[in-house]
Amino acid sequence: MANITKKVSWSSRTDESGAAGEDTPLLNGSEPPRRSRQLSEGDGIFQIGRLSTVDLEEEITSDEDSLRARPKEIPHNEKLLSLKYESLDYDNIENQLFLEEERRMGHMNFRCLEISRWVICGLIGFFTGLVACCIDIVVEILAGYKYKEVKENIEKFTEAGGLSISLLLWAVLNSAFVMVGSIIVAFFEPVAAGSGIPQIKCYLNGIKIPRVVRLKTLLVKVFGVICSVAGGLAVGKEGPMIHSGAVIAAGVSQGRSTSLKRDFKIFEYFRRDTEKRDFVSAGAAAGVSAAFGAPVGGVLFSLEEGASFWNQMLTWRIFFASMISTFTLNFFLSVHHNTPGELSSPGLINFGRFDSETMTYNLYEVPLFIAMGAIGGLLGALFNFLNYWLTIFRIRYVHRPCLQVMEAMLVAAVTAMVSFTMMYFSNDCQPLDSNSSEDYPLQLFCADGEYNSMATVFFNTPEKSVRSLFHNQPGTSSPLTLGLFTLTYFFLACWTYGLAVSAGVFIPSLLIGAAWGRLCGILLASITHSSDSMWADPGKYALIGAAAQLGGIVRMTISLTVIMMEATGNVTYGFPIMLVLITAKIVGDYFVEGLYDIHIKLQSVPFLHWEAPATSHWLTAREVMSSPVTCLNRIEKVGTIVDILSNTSTCHNGFPVVVQVANSDEPAKLCGLILRSQLIVLLKHKVFVELARSRLTMRKLQLKDFRDAYPRFPPIQSIHVSQDERECMMDLTEFMNPTPYTVPEETSLPRVFKLFRALGLRHLVVVNDENKVIGLVTRKDLARYHMGKHGLEELQLAQT
Amino acid sequence: MANITKKVSWSSRTDESGAAGEDTPLLNGSEPPRRSRQLSEGDGIFQIGRLSTVDLEEEITSDEDSLRARPKEIPHNEKLLSLKYESLDYDNIENQLFLEEERRMGHMNFRCLEISRWVICGLIGFFTGLVACCIDIVVEILAGYKYKEVKENIEKFTEAGGLSISLLLWAVLNSAFVMVGSIIVAFFEPVAAGSGIPQIKCYLNGIKIPRVVRLKTLLVKVFGVICSVAGGLAVGKEGPMIHSGAVIAAGVSQGRSTSLKRDFKIFEYFRRDTEKRDFVSAGAAAGVSAAFGAPVGGVLFSLEEGASFWNQMLTWRIFFASMISTFTLNFFLSVHHNTPGELSSPGLINFGRFDSETMTYNLYEVPLFIAMGAIGGLLGALFNFLNYWLTIFRIRYVHRPCLQVMEAMLVAAVTAMVSFTMMYFSNDCQPLDSNSSEDYPLQLFCADGEYNSMATVFFNTPEKSVRSLFHNQPGTSSPLTLGLFTLTYFFLACWTYGLAVSAGVFIPSLLIGAAWGRLCGILLASITHSSDSMWADPGKYALIGAAAQLGGIVRMTISLTVIMMEATGNVTYGFPIMLVLITAKIVGDYFVEGLYDIHIKLQSVPFLHWEAPATSHWLTAREVMSSPVTCLNRIEKVGTIVDILSNTSTCHNGFPVVVQVANSDEPAKLCGLILRSQLIVLLKHKVFVELARSRLTMRKLQLKDFRDAYPRFPPIQSIHVSQDERECMMDLTEFMNPTPYTVPEETSLPRVFKLFRALGLRHLVVVNDENKVIGLVTRKDLARYHMGKHGLEELQLAQT
Repeated sequence: MANITKKVSWSSRTDESGAAGEDTPLLNGSEPPRRSRQLSEGDGIFQIGRLSTVDLEEEITSDEDSLRARPKEIPHNEKLLSLKYESLDYDNIENQLFLEEERRMGHMNFRCLEISRWVICGLIGFFTGLVACCIDIVVEILAGYKYKEVKENIEKFTEAGGLSISLLLWAVLNSAFVMVGSIIVAFFEPVAAGSGIPQIKCYLNGIKIPRVVRLKTLLVKVFGVICSVAGGLAVGKEGPMIHSGAVIAAGVSQGRSTSLKRDFKIFEYFRRDTEKRDFVSAGAAAGVSAAFGAPVGGVLFSLEEGASFWNQMLTWRIFFASMISTFTLNFFLSVHHNTPGELSSPGLINFGRFDSETMTYNLYEVPLFIAMGAIGGLLGALFNFLNYWLTIFRIRYVHRPCLQVMEAMLVAAVTAMVSFTMMYFSNDCQPLDSNSSEDYPLQLFCADGEYNSMATVFFNTPEKSVRSLFHNQPGTSSPLTLGLFTLTYFFLACWTYGLAVSAGVFIPSLLIGAAWGRLCGILLASITHSSDSMWADPGKYALIGAAAQLGGIVRMTISLTVIMMEATGNVTYGFPIMLVLITAKIVGDYFVEGLYDIHIKLQSVPFLHWEAPATSHWLTAREVMSSPVTCLNRIEKVGTIVDILSNTSTCHNGFPVVVQVANSDEPAKLCGLILRSQLIVLLKHKVFVELARSRLTMRKLQLKDFRDAYPRFPPIQSIHVSQDERECMMDLTEFMNPTPYTVPEETSLPRVFKLFRALGLRHLVVVNDENKVIGLVTRKDLARYHMGKHGLEELQLAQT
Repeated sequence: MANITKKVSWSSRTDESGAAGEDTPLLNGSEPPRRSRQLSEGDGIFQIGRLSTVDLEEEITSDEDSLRARPKEIPHNEKLLSLKYESLDYDNIENQLFLEEERRMGHMNFRCLEISRWVICGLIGFFTGLVACCIDIVVEILAGYKYKEVKENIEKFTEAGGLSISLLLWAVLNSAFVMVGSIIVAFFEPVAAGSGIPQIKCYLNGIKIPRVVRLKTLLVKVFGVICSVAGGLAVGKEGPMIHSGAVIAAGVSQGRSTSLKRDFKIFEYFRRDTEKRDFVSAGAAAGVSAAFGAPVGGVLFSLEEGASFWNQMLTWRIFFASMISTFTLNFFLSVHHNTPGELSSPGLINFGRFDSETMTYNLYEVPLFIAMGAIGGLLGALFNFLNYWLTIFRIRYVHRPCLQVMEAMLVAAVTAMVSFTMMYFSNDCQPLDSNSSEDYPLQLFCADGEYNSMATVFFNTPEKSVRSLFHNQPGTSSPLTLGLFTLTYFFLACWTYGLAVSAGVFIPSLLIGAAWGRLCGILLASITHSSDSMWADPGKYALIGAAAQLGGIVRMTISLTVIMMEATGNVTYGFPIMLVLITAKIVGDYFVEGLYDIHIKLQSVPFLHWEAPATSHWLTAREVMSSPVTCLNRIEKVGTIVDILSNTSTCHNGFPVVVQVANSDEPAKLCGLILRSQLIVLLKHKVFVELARSRLTMRKLQLKDFRDAYPRFPPIQSIHVSQDERECMMDLTEFMNPTPYTVPEETSLPRVFKLFRALGLRHLVVVNDENKVIGLVTRKDLARYHMGKHGLEELQLAQT
């Protein structure tokens, strides 16, 4: 039945640890070796694409130059699992320092901490709202300027006949904006490319993506998204808000900026993975909330993407951050729009309000909705499939930053060109209504008092095009216009996603969907020849189509339903939207995965899904774990520790601590677990048994010392240990986690998986029936197994 | 700092197990003894109140008569923890049978199971919607009839002067309805009393509340709620919908009815606690969804109350059930209202749509909202406090069913009387508008063309009163009317909650809040003397007041916000509602717990909260666990097993299986865990080693045999084991869970708690560093510790 395809990886891994094992018993392979200096050269191929992979944050070998060279050596394969990503540690290290600190802290201190958490969430919401507001206003101004210029130019040349000059102006303006946006992304911070949602998904899943929550990333992201939207690309400014919110959260919650070298000495308690990840969830939620005016949708997004263990208070705080974020955005936008204090406007994207009185649906429309969901699923699968091949092409051939910038500029110019051509050859003229919502109505070759209908969708920012498709009166665009627009915009959006610019895919998806949805609505009305108001309103079908297309591409479920409900300010459509999203997901999943998952897979990230693959109960911890394990003694020689940490071929992060045994080959009894980062801090502070005896007055190490070093623990190479000190001993008892979670070796994979995922572990020790360490399970050991077409499959582990 | 108040419980528990321990080593006290026959007599005091406690479902001693006698023996104390509640088992028993079954099942079978889950959720939603629809229509008809009769009578006697006859008619009609509703609850199914939300909270938390998901309970609940709403009590029909949904879910998902003795032979795979609990979550969500037209709110309610581990697919299915539920309700209601197919109406309660265009709020109103939240918190705390004392009074003195029925009838009569008196003495006359929404406008002593304003709130079902408070034009009721109404209704609702009728507290809370909220709005408008439309609309303040009052009473957080948002069909008020709910919760929690938590605590249910109390890290598993543990050998004598299971003083449910040891006092090595229910099935099927040898053709026991016996496993007394059979041996290897989760004895309480809660465990084995069993942690061992006023406190374990 379920058979496993064991690949080269297995043997190569065993070989490596076996070879090392002969020299130093008990000192090998708890995790397969991380990327070493020699291997890192092949990394460059991952430089482009959504997930940049330069591992600087706590990388030991950081040679950036070598990372961008020699792209073709490692065959690109999504059947690989990269070894270079580290996990976040959600498990609390309950060592003696922790217990002492807890004893010192009174009841009141815990209350203060709780209040701090709320304050931080408030701040996260506030700053996220503020950033969203800035992006919105600046984009509005820049895009407004651009369209005004081009419009004047077109009007000038329409009659004179030199419209190619207008085209040139438009293309150059677009390319200029995009060039700026692309340069900062490609050259300064590749991790800021794209929407950032895959990265945040990974982070919330517990994977450390280097530099993803840095201040520099935020700046590049914000500036980049302004440029790419103003540059007229088929992108949205909403996706990047999620990433921005996450960065803001990570920054605010730590009370310092490592980049700016400022430490505000506040919120020091929160300087560890557990707390930081909670706040990043809140930040992502605040980002969604600001982008779509959907605070509940934001909370659900965070939960859907990140939650392992639902915690009521945490969720409530996330909701608070989301609410503050929309509130802040609304307040500042109301000030900007000269109606200060009017707090009822929605988020960044404004779908316009669907009035619940007039807009309604009927039972016999339900099959239509399902059919539209299926169309959305099909188109979404096609989009993802095309983008998948495009991304592989880019990984192979478009990996140099300058090439990336040129591609982005090319796309910008082509977008302008295609749009212009479509407008030029369109003869869909509509009478210019006095209460029309057109921002830049273009007359072109239409009669006076009329405007070019194709221009309403092409000659505008995508957000406004979506809104006009939702709300324009029936008959404002011909079916041909909508069909052509869908076709061209589909390919433009597909080409655009994956460029080295900071931009989201939500709005283009919605726009494509709204266009063909409206087309469906018009066709239906013409088929039924009905003047019934039920069929006559194509806006409703535009909304359903938009949901179907977006669902078909990103495959989000409950959070997307709620986001759409909140963004339209209408709960009536909840049921049809959900139906459509379910259908789109089922149909789409039949062909290919969701866009974000594709990009995560292409980066070989060890992503843990919700559950272990079904039919994997026969796999046990013994088969899954890595072994033998590098263990440390309770009282260990400093030299041994330094050697283990310096060993670049086995760059482990967690070491089981065992009770003193004779130097035998037999496994030893587990008594704790200690992390690389802890050992580094101990070495740095020279917490040696001998020194403690000689200097009785030496300040005792506190948790504060560990927090101060977080998250950029120095590499072992930077710590100088003299030859004398190498002979000293270190007592780990006080610092290790004395009760790590363990599983017996016969435990099935799903059980291990459940424990690992539910508790957010990073290391899980496998013991035999005498409590002796026989293996260690890490994220990669679990992420390796997945459900393929032919049952359970195993991914190869790669050094990339 | 954190000091623990060790109470009598400790010593008494140790004594008991110690005493037993001398006779039979290794056969004691894994869980402290459950209620035995002698002790059960004192139980009667828990018979009334929300949580009925007759433990029939799998109780060994079921003497109902003795349960209703001698109420005063055990001092009622919420500082107790009852031992009679069992846990649900969320852990998957991965024994050999399970693995064999998995191997037999192909890939397709898993897909079929997944589809079945969706079908079941659809059915749950459908039936829940249907039940909600029935309740709504029947209540409408009955209440309509009653009010019409009384109105005609009042109109007849207003001029003639015999209004006391009208009063009598009203009171008698009310009492008659309530009597019927109360009799079926008090005499037939006490667990159907109240809203059922505390019971469902407990069930989702993992506690087995006997009879809570039976068909009989559903029938009594539905019929009871119709009677109590039609009987004019200060109750709502929304809360009970949650319970109804849960019962429907439990029934549908099992594919059989034990009460009706019908087995449809479908969905057999889902006959275990894990799956059933998932479906019950969906049912509860569907109930919320039907009640408030809030599918997202329903999902969040389920998560807030029940989730331990967030699972994307499960949540998505819950959402599906919720959506189907609202959809079904809307469809049938649209048929009932002669607009078939119009699917845009909301749930059971109809707040009316708040139009987002005209209703808005401003920044300077935010402090007002916060102040109203504080008022709500204070009033809610007062409500809960009064109800707390009332409940204790009822537990002491109103425990006989006939007394309960009489109290319910008294309340019904008094409600009519008070309402009548208020209307009688009110001189708040309002002009009868032609487009007024009054269903039963009463003229009473008003001039012609006017109606009595007090009657709009008193002479109507509570739902409709809420709606009129939200939407009536400014000036339709005087401040005095509203003030008097708030005061009287507050006490009426407080008295009503806890009666032996099936009814919810949501609507009365909303009504009280809407009344004083509207009052606030009117006062504000008169203070500011403003004709500005912002202040002039008291409906907005009614909404905020309603949220504040409800939040102050039930203290739900995120789900309540979303329910309010969805019920009003308006996302604009999300932020103020959230602010108000946060304030109400903070203020209320300062004084007293939420209403549901009070009732859960008064029943001494071992409820596990989200996290272990802070500052409890110094407590270890060694101190928390129960020991010594009754262990079984891998191959055990049947006689020993029967004796252990029959021992009523130590009625354990889980037994660690250890490797064969000499009969020494030393603990033995753990090799598995087996449940009482499994042993019972094994005994019933006589799976003895000797018999297997003699009858080689005997059918092998399968998981199906265990599922068929679920959930009402026969008591050990009903299984006949002959003297010969007692000498046989049973091999448990195949049936035990071979890899139960374990913790070392030094593990801190929060770590144990986290593991227990996140994985939904029932038994957690504590082992020493040689993997030998030294203790067992169950729900009661963890629920015992809680944060009191003076740090960590320990609850007493009681036999109640």
